[in-house]
Amino acid sequence: MSNQKIIEGDYILLYLSQRKTYLVKVEAGKSFHTHKGFIKFDDLIGKDYGSCIPSSLGVEFIALKPLLRDYVMKSVRKTQITYPKDIALIVMFSGIGPGSRVVEAGTGTGALTTALAHYVKPDGRVYSYEIREEFLKTAEKNLKRAGLIDFVELKTKDVTAGIDESDVDAVILDLATPWLVVSHAYNALKHCRTIVSFSPTIDQVVKTVEALMENGFVDMETVECLMRGMQIERGKTRPQTLMTAHTGYVTFARKAMGHTM
Amino acid sequence: MSNQKIIEGDYILLYLSQRKTYLVKVEAGKSFHTHKGFIKFDDLIGKDYGSCIPSSLGVEFIALKPLLRDYVMKSVRKTQITYPKDIALIVMFSGIGPGSRVVEAGTGTGALTTALAHYVKPDGRVYSYEIREEFLKTAEKNLKRAGLIDFVELKTKDVTAGIDESDVDAVILDLATPWLVVSHAYNALKHCRTIVSFSPTIDQVVKTVEALMENGFVDMETVECLMRGMQIERGKTRPQTLMTAHTGYVTFARKAMGHTM
Amino acid sequence: MSNQKIIEGDYILLYLSQRKTYLVKVEAGKSFHTHKGFIKFDDLIGKDYGSCIPSSLGVEFIALKPLLRDYVMKSVRKTQITYPKDIALIVMFSGIGPGSRVVEAGTGTGALTTALAHYVKPDGRVYSYEIREEFLKTAEKNLKRAGLIDFVELKTKDVTAGIDESDVDAVILDLATPWLVVSHAYNALKHCRTIVSFSPTIDQVVKTVEALMENGFVDMETVECLMRGMQIERGKTRPQTLMTAHTGYVTFARKAMGHTM
Amino acid sequence: MSNQKIIEGDYILLYLSQRKTYLVKVEAGKSFHTHKGFIKFDDLIGKDYGSCIPSSLGVEFIALKPLLRDYVMKSVRKTQITYPKDIALIVMFSGIGPGSRVVEAGTGTGALTTALAHYVKPDGRVYSYEIREEFLKTAEKNLKRAGLIDFVELKTKDVTAGIDESDVDAVILDLATPWLVVSHAYNALKHCRTIVSFSPTIDQVVKTVEALMENGFVDMETVECLMRGMQIERGKTRPQTLMTAHTGYVTFARKAMGHTM
Repeated sequence: MSNQKIIEGDYILLYLSQRKTYLVKVEAGKSFHTHKGFIKFDDLIGKDYGSCIPSSLGVEFIALKPLLRDYVMKSVRKTQITYPKDIALIVMFSGIGPGSRVVEAGTGTGALTTALAHYVKPDGRVYSYEIREEFLKTAEKNLKRAGLIDFVELKTKDVTAGIDESDVDAVILDLATPWLVVSHAYNALKHCRTIVSFSPTIDQVVKTVEALMENGFVDMETVECLMRGMQIERGKTRPQTLMTAHTGYVTFARKAMGHTM
Repeated sequence: MSNQKIIEGDYILLYLSQRKTYLVKVEAGKSFHTHKGFIKFDDLIGKDYGSCIPSSLGVEFIALKPLLRDYVMKSVRKTQITYPKDIALIVMFSGIGPGSRVVEAGTGTGALTTALAHYVKPDGRVYSYEIREEFLKTAEKNLKRAGLIDFVELKTKDVTAGIDESDVDAVILDLATPWLVVSHAYNALKHCRTIVSFSPTIDQVVKTVEALMENGFVDMETVECLMRGMQIERGKTRPQTLMTAHTGYVTFARKAMGHTM
Repeated sequence: MSNQKIIEGDYILLYLSQRKTYLVKVEAGKSFHTHKGFIKFDDLIGKDYGSCIPSSLGVEFIALKPLLRDYVMKSVRKTQITYPKDIALIVMFSGIGPGSRVVEAGTGTGALTTALAHYVKPDGRVYSYEIREEFLKTAEKNLKRAGLIDFVELKTKDVTAGIDESDVDAVILDLATPWLVVSHAYNALKHCRTIVSFSPTIDQVVKTVEALMENGFVDMETVECLMRGMQIERGKTRPQTLMTAHTGYVTFARKAMGHTM
Repeated sequence: MSNQKIIEGDYILLYLSQRKTYLVKVEAGKSFHTHKGFIKFDDLIGKDYGSCIPSSLGVEFIALKPLLRDYVMKSVRKTQITYPKDIALIVMFSGIGPGSRVVEAGTGTGALTTALAHYVKPDGRVYSYEIREEFLKTAEKNLKRAGLIDFVELKTKDVTAGIDESDVDAVILDLATPWLVVSHAYNALKHCRTIVSFSPTIDQVVKTVEALMENGFVDMETVECLMRGMQIERGKTRPQTLMTAHTGYVTFARKAMGHTM
């Protein structure tokens, strides 16, 4: 994680502009093609991270070292989108950190899984449930690319049928019917630990909060987070013209005692 | 971190309602007084975390295990407030994780420091600069309470005069004049690593972004994050009536090469 | 409406600061008392609108001529608050203007009624339904104060039992059960004219939209409007710290033909 | 304004869906072509407003009577966009109504002019300044289409050089350099009347507020308005995915006395 020279096999973030970046694997003898010309990987190998590299058309790219957010953004595909702003909030609300054991469902293409694994490594573990096998394959690829596959157990299982793990630190839900997992989550969690659920619709939230109240959770809180970009330029500063108006609601609760299933 | 029984010396979160919680230290022979009666700690010691405990007036409290967010919220005092939503975003944008070495300035009362320490432990380290000694004392107390002091080096130093560390993974700024720290941050950072700055006013952001452009940073992005609570109750669901309209703008950039100081 | 001198019987807006204003009636021989001293009305009579007037404690007030928004804000009492931002949107969406005939329910204390009357005068008319007589008295007082009572017919009637008027240009609803008024509104409206409903909860909106779909309305649209104040000062410009996070949702639709009751 | 039958020469709003509407003139013997087939106007003439009409491909359109908002939305072209939410707020803040005399600058393509004329008719008047002649032609066309040209005086003049009118009820600015018009506005306004300025950037707002303070205005207020659409459907209700994040800031002030130019 700390090498400062680009070596064969590294994933790099080729940066053209804030809007145009490419997450690519450095492969000797090969090139990467863009609408601004191609980049020969052999020209990159051995260079310092952060170097400028001209394309075949003379356009300058910068070879950046990918960060968590890049892996998250680039793993967003084919399924419901989870945004960095939501992932950040989910992680913070869940209370997890290095060493935590976390159950996640569903995996999707692994955007949230990637973030969870990043924060619980090296001693923690993410148990990620998904019933759609094609998603698990994509998630596995994305996790390998981010170097985080070792901290994740991908499970082809229906989480609404039960959670195998116990004494976990958090259960994190990003699926269509979170309320069906609430009682399983109660049993899987350590005392006082957290459930965090992400849902796009109001009705999902209402059903989930009702299930939480019925199943011994306390301190329920539901929020939505709006992130707006700013265009910063002296004399012309203003918020951006367009924004994502809605991704989903984040619901949080803690397991209290005294609830017998 | 994983004990499930309350023992003497633990910090617990006494929960009355979502709005009323108290972060207190369990001390044998002592009591904690609230407007709803007092709690004898001796009644708590040996109980499971998550247990209900009646006060002297018969009002039920729940003895919860504090999470990162609780430590963050309860360390917010005497100085500019940094909100969990902003801390979550700063952490995610910075790319830090277990093992990262991070420079922070200023420490304030340690709310953001607490979060940074939580995510970089056990092998990472936070170097936190603050010139106001009275804040450092509060920060130290808050970090000790959260069990995170071992991962932080508190420094009574003016960060605008320079950064002692080098090859760090992130520089995180929450101070009045972030633009004065940008060139020092460039020198302190590893290639491709990040600077993240939090500022309440537009003018601070403009000056900081200009300094970033002049000092070899790329991929600048400034956002603001609005978090709105929802009141969830079947038939009565609606957003909350009041919200925090503004805390500050989060500005992010990455160090590229080729900039000579 | 166009006098520029203050005369006995006028309502004036005494302005101390953007946060501190008083809507008062000018009465010869009397005074108005504030925490910053009192103002003798005799000192004001005959002065130009916009004049400065010192209080008995030497604090300067400005005698402003009230605008629609002042009457709206100052009539907000005892009941659900309708904000200028929402009133503005309701008026615009409704399509009403000078000469329009409008049904409103409920009247409440007349904040929205005041605005509707202002825009339909002098040839239009507002028919405003309210079942709570104590509100109608306050509304009448507020409308008189704003000089708009002549354009309003206040009706002590339950609008869910039916609308007396026909061929109206708009039906505007700010009551707990708007869905019960939708079929009456259809019958009362001219073709293609509008219904606009204001509701604080999601569930009210869902029921109302369902009623609109079942009752021959088209072009349904529901929005919420967030207004955030800015603190403008060179070098310190920033959004305000607190804001109203939610007042209600505005739902709009147009009557199409072919629906037989 | 009150005919209920479609006649030759009327402008109608052909409605296919909430997203697909067309503002067209009914011309005998002609047709209107869409991607869903064409509509013969002869089939519409004599029908009731609100009628369904099938296209040549059998797709049903509804012939709606255009409302103010439709004229506003459809006149938005070639220039800075002013949104209904902003127009609604500008109108409300300005305090204008039937009979008001209003100065506006710049005209642009007449979206805001259309709304102002709608609210001040039949006895009021809008004096609208614009230096770009090609815009004035479009504005004139848009105002004629909305039936509001008689209430507007379009002026090919640079408002920063002065305002011809005096004793006006409001000055409304939507141009690049509003601060250059502030002293002219002061002279043109009746006492206590309003200036309202709409600007997309922070810097424009700061300069304008400074000019207002220097020129005898009081009660300054700057706001921004965010409007978010909701998707209403039982069991699937949620905010829309995309929204306009920023159009501009609305700044309001009132003329006080005692300022001599």
